[in-house]
Amino acid sequence: MPSYSAPTKDMQFILHDVLDLTGSDIPGYDELEPDFTRAILEEAGKISTGVLHPLNVVGDTEGCRLENGVVYTPTGFKAAFEQVKEGGWPGLDMPEEYGGQNMPYVIGTAVGEMFSSANQAFTMYQGLTHGAASAILAHGSDEQKQTYLPKMVSCEWTGTMNLTEPHCGTDLGLMRTKAEPQDDGSYKVTGQKIFISAGDHDLAENIVHLVLAKIPGGPEGIKGVSLFIVPKFIVKEDGSLGERNAVSVGKIEEKMGIHGNSTCVMNYDGAVGYLLGEAHKGMRAMFTMMNEARIGVGMQGLAQAEAAYQNAVIYAKDRLQGRDVTGTKNPDGPADPLIVHPDIRRNLMDQKSFTEGARAFILWGATLIDQAHRGGDAAADGLVSLMTPVIKGFLTDQGYDMTVQAQQVYGGHGYIEEWGMSQYTRDARIAMIYEGANGVQALDLVGRKLAQDGGKHVMAFFDLVKSFCKENSGSDEAYDRDFIEPLKKASKDLQAAGMYFMQNGMKNPNNALSGSYDFMHMFGHVCLGLMWARMAKAARAALAGGATDAAFYETKLMTGRYYMARRLPATALHLTRIESGAETVMGLDATSF
Amino acid sequence: MPSYSAPTKDMQFILHDVLDLTGSDIPGYDELEPDFTRAILEEAGKISTGVLHPLNVVGDTEGCRLENGVVYTPTGFKAAFEQVKEGGWPGLDMPEEYGGQNMPYVIGTAVGEMFSSANQAFTMYQGLTHGAASAILAHGSDEQKQTYLPKMVSCEWTGTMNLTEPHCGTDLGLMRTKAEPQDDGSYKVTGQKIFISAGDHDLAENIVHLVLAKIPGGPEGIKGVSLFIVPKFIVKEDGSLGERNAVSVGKIEEKMGIHGNSTCVMNYDGAVGYLLGEAHKGMRAMFTMMNEARIGVGMQGLAQAEAAYQNAVIYAKDRLQGRDVTGTKNPDGPADPLIVHPDIRRNLMDQKSFTEGARAFILWGATLIDQAHRGGDAAADGLVSLMTPVIKGFLTDQGYDMTVQAQQVYGGHGYIEEWGMSQYTRDARIAMIYEGANGVQALDLVGRKLAQDGGKHVMAFFDLVKSFCKENSGSDEAYDRDFIEPLKKASKDLQAAGMYFMQNGMKNPNNALSGSYDFMHMFGHVCLGLMWARMAKAARAALAGGATDAAFYETKLMTGRYYMARRLPATALHLTRIESGAETVMGLDATSF
Repeated sequence: MPSYSAPTKDMQFILHDVLDLTGSDIPGYDELEPDFTRAILEEAGKISTGVLHPLNVVGDTEGCRLENGVVYTPTGFKAAFEQVKEGGWPGLDMPEEYGGQNMPYVIGTAVGEMFSSANQAFTMYQGLTHGAASAILAHGSDEQKQTYLPKMVSCEWTGTMNLTEPHCGTDLGLMRTKAEPQDDGSYKVTGQKIFISAGDHDLAENIVHLVLAKIPGGPEGIKGVSLFIVPKFIVKEDGSLGERNAVSVGKIEEKMGIHGNSTCVMNYDGAVGYLLGEAHKGMRAMFTMMNEARIGVGMQGLAQAEAAYQNAVIYAKDRLQGRDVTGTKNPDGPADPLIVHPDIRRNLMDQKSFTEGARAFILWGATLIDQAHRGGDAAADGLVSLMTPVIKGFLTDQGYDMTVQAQQVYGGHGYIEEWGMSQYTRDARIAMIYEGANGVQALDLVGRKLAQDGGKHVMAFFDLVKSFCKENSGSDEAYDRDFIEPLKKASKDLQAAGMYFMQNGMKNPNNALSGSYDFMHMFGHVCLGLMWARMAKAARAALAGGATDAAFYETKLMTGRYYMARRLPATALHLTRIESGAETVMGLDATSF
Repeated sequence: MPSYSAPTKDMQFILHDVLDLTGSDIPGYDELEPDFTRAILEEAGKISTGVLHPLNVVGDTEGCRLENGVVYTPTGFKAAFEQVKEGGWPGLDMPEEYGGQNMPYVIGTAVGEMFSSANQAFTMYQGLTHGAASAILAHGSDEQKQTYLPKMVSCEWTGTMNLTEPHCGTDLGLMRTKAEPQDDGSYKVTGQKIFISAGDHDLAENIVHLVLAKIPGGPEGIKGVSLFIVPKFIVKEDGSLGERNAVSVGKIEEKMGIHGNSTCVMNYDGAVGYLLGEAHKGMRAMFTMMNEARIGVGMQGLAQAEAAYQNAVIYAKDRLQGRDVTGTKNPDGPADPLIVHPDIRRNLMDQKSFTEGARAFILWGATLIDQAHRGGDAAADGLVSLMTPVIKGFLTDQGYDMTVQAQQVYGGHGYIEEWGMSQYTRDARIAMIYEGANGVQALDLVGRKLAQDGGKHVMAFFDLVKSFCKENSGSDEAYDRDFIEPLKKASKDLQAAGMYFMQNGMKNPNNALSGSYDFMHMFGHVCLGLMWARMAKAARAALAGGATDAAFYETKLMTGRYYMARRLPATALHLTRIESGAETVMGLDATSF
């Protein structure tokens, strides 16, 4: 049975030593003193390790079941969901007006990582509700907000997102679900939606489905898509639950992982729906959920990698196998622990340097969201919008790879379900796919975000890296050599790739799009490189200040050096690929495959 | 439901256009005329696609079950196994003396790829028997050969390999299973073995377990390990089956994949065993199986990638989603097929250039084995021994990644078991682990094989690449630029890595071992680069000779150019990592993880 412990200390280091939350002028950050955030993180850690994690394997083994039209979640999920609700966790970063605690998003993100590491399938019920509530918060009428938000903020009611249909996922313009206007201002929604996470279950008394559909007679394609609120039970004027709406579960999908979450085919048969936001502007409203969801999914990539890594470390220390070639480390035992072996070290250092770098990246991104939403900072909004596909695509790809590496440490035991490492891999796999497959993230990045607002966000990113390097170089040779120089080099590779796109994408957009996936990955590496340079700076400052826990900061420096020396140089390979252009990528006739 | 079609044409191209089988002086190769090999491959293709592949999903879904001590395979496996036996496939490359067809190993390898693509879990029953028979062939007494081989060559009896115990996998010196000598010359074998593939089942009337155990009083550690034949039913002098031996199934493991193969915990309780080969030389005897098994496992990496790729291509052509940014390709349809999109192309080209390159690599390796075994060529033996960990480690790592990429083409459908893509990923995962986890392959390569016989095999490899480049450059600018130059560059990177190991491994072996995994991968890339240069040469010759199927050869050239431009340059990244040395890899205290 795998274990999980909350990385509170590492989060505190990032929040305070690196990101200096209380030193920021973002509204609400002045309250985020180290003792305060520690208290929250420790409580979140308790429920994660004590309540959610023990149900992770249970959820995987039992899965959800559909009986007579009703979906049942695995044993223990209902009681755990009650505990999560009682703790007020779902409304942590939601407005007080609707029963939330109005914490900054950065705190919700840190807590979200723990919950997701402990039990991704379980946490999705709450996560989707959060996304749906955010969309209602941003686009709902006052009445809609009053009707739905208090119940959703508390998770008494949960939420879903309904986009995909059997014949369309990425290309939602092909959508067939229709919403016919009724005399009372409501709509009748009819159609089939698939892959609906948390589509039905026994954890809440009502489920608020947000459904994309087309109003007949509206514009063709994606411009004729609107968003609707379709509650499982119609809400009466007094707020109590009325009749069952005409929405039903077609089936529960059998998936590779996240078995504890009910992924449903949902059938809408003239279900009563209410327009959310403007007619035909459904995609805009949906994107409120999508952007948040994408960052949340990027976090899942980190979260599964973290959980898998922790177990790989335990196994590598416990399992005795072979001897250290440079001299026995465990002379009294029959063999040395796996962790003495260089290739096991390489494997673990890949994981460690990724998870810690990714955590800093996600939390930095979360502060930018707070800066944008709470501080009204358009530049921060532009920057995080640019980085959203990177957070989603890079962190889930790498996070998945890390779960595979963690599984590898276990040898044959990694392949046996009993040991739990296979589940991390199987659960992590979905994050590369949902909320826009990673290829679509790359397309969003290169095809849309790079050129957005005249390219000013990507320029701002480069300026930020440049300023950092300038401000922090020249004072220490080792730091310059180990952190600043590699970061400069990687950033230069990234700029060269952007330049290649500009110069060659005009004459043939495929020259840019053929390199989009590589660009997303090199962008991710540069972000993690920047994070490691910032973390190393903070660690050096702490050591210089005589920090009591010197080993913690020394470890940070070594882990950072590993990343800069062994992971970051991947940018050069990505650049080589990008600069090879579209010819060999697009050269074949489709019939030649 | 996924589909599979046998890549007969591609195999024929490799066997004849590239490897020129009949032009070789390896004994038996003169018979391998194109029509002859095509006939075999087409027959193998029929049974693969018609009999084995339809059972692939069945095996995954049903798995094996243990009832009252007896293991039952999934529905249809027994009948299919009969068909495989009737076709004489298990004995294809086994000696005629024992009922085999005495074909070269290269033919068995090509057929093996098809079987494994069609149904890996099923094919393992036969594959393990082949390995066990090879060990008996190499190390058994005449009596043992007569008793077991005819039945094993026909697969009336199957075989297993018993190495791993709960506390030891890689480090077999820790083994506890013991074999006590009896007065009649036999042994009583007692102990527990785990992860025994095909450990028990209902496909054969007897199972010949090859079991590693220690004879009490023998040398300590790995030098005291011997190999024993332990049949499930004792074979009487007349060859008929006698009493049930004291070996039983403890349980069937629940695994991530290959559910159709029964992976058993085997308990030996004083089971009658017969020494195979010399006492205390069990590892040597076992390595006869292991080397063959490692190449077979490398082939599984390719085989799963091939099957997954074929389905990804079908889906990419069928699924309509979005429009080609350079102009609609399907104006009459609601959208263009996925295959028009550059990032889908990148994904598919990664897969295509890998599978075709890997196939050439494996088949080339198989000819070297024939050259060594049939032709008694020590140089070929040394070369293939050097490349065995590369074939195993590189092809299974990359093969797995390709199944993940193929799954990604399907978007959400790739995560749903019904579509079958998850199974390819889950099945492919084991190949990175069994027959020596890939980290152990890297250790074998760098820690043992590089320096073997004074390093002469690796020098021979470099000479081979150098000669190829020299002999084939200067006649065509495009070929030089697209193939020869990238191959030279990659080979130079590999040599530089070897040089780094020599110069720095002496003072600290960790400098070499920290880079072993990267070295294995760069070696693999150079091998595939060499294969592509050879395939491109053959394709150019065919085109110059006025081949009727010009499109086939043009496609080869473009696919090869893709590999050289986009995949092969990974060697530079691996070299950068290797040259960063052991410091950041080994720098942390074990307690800092």
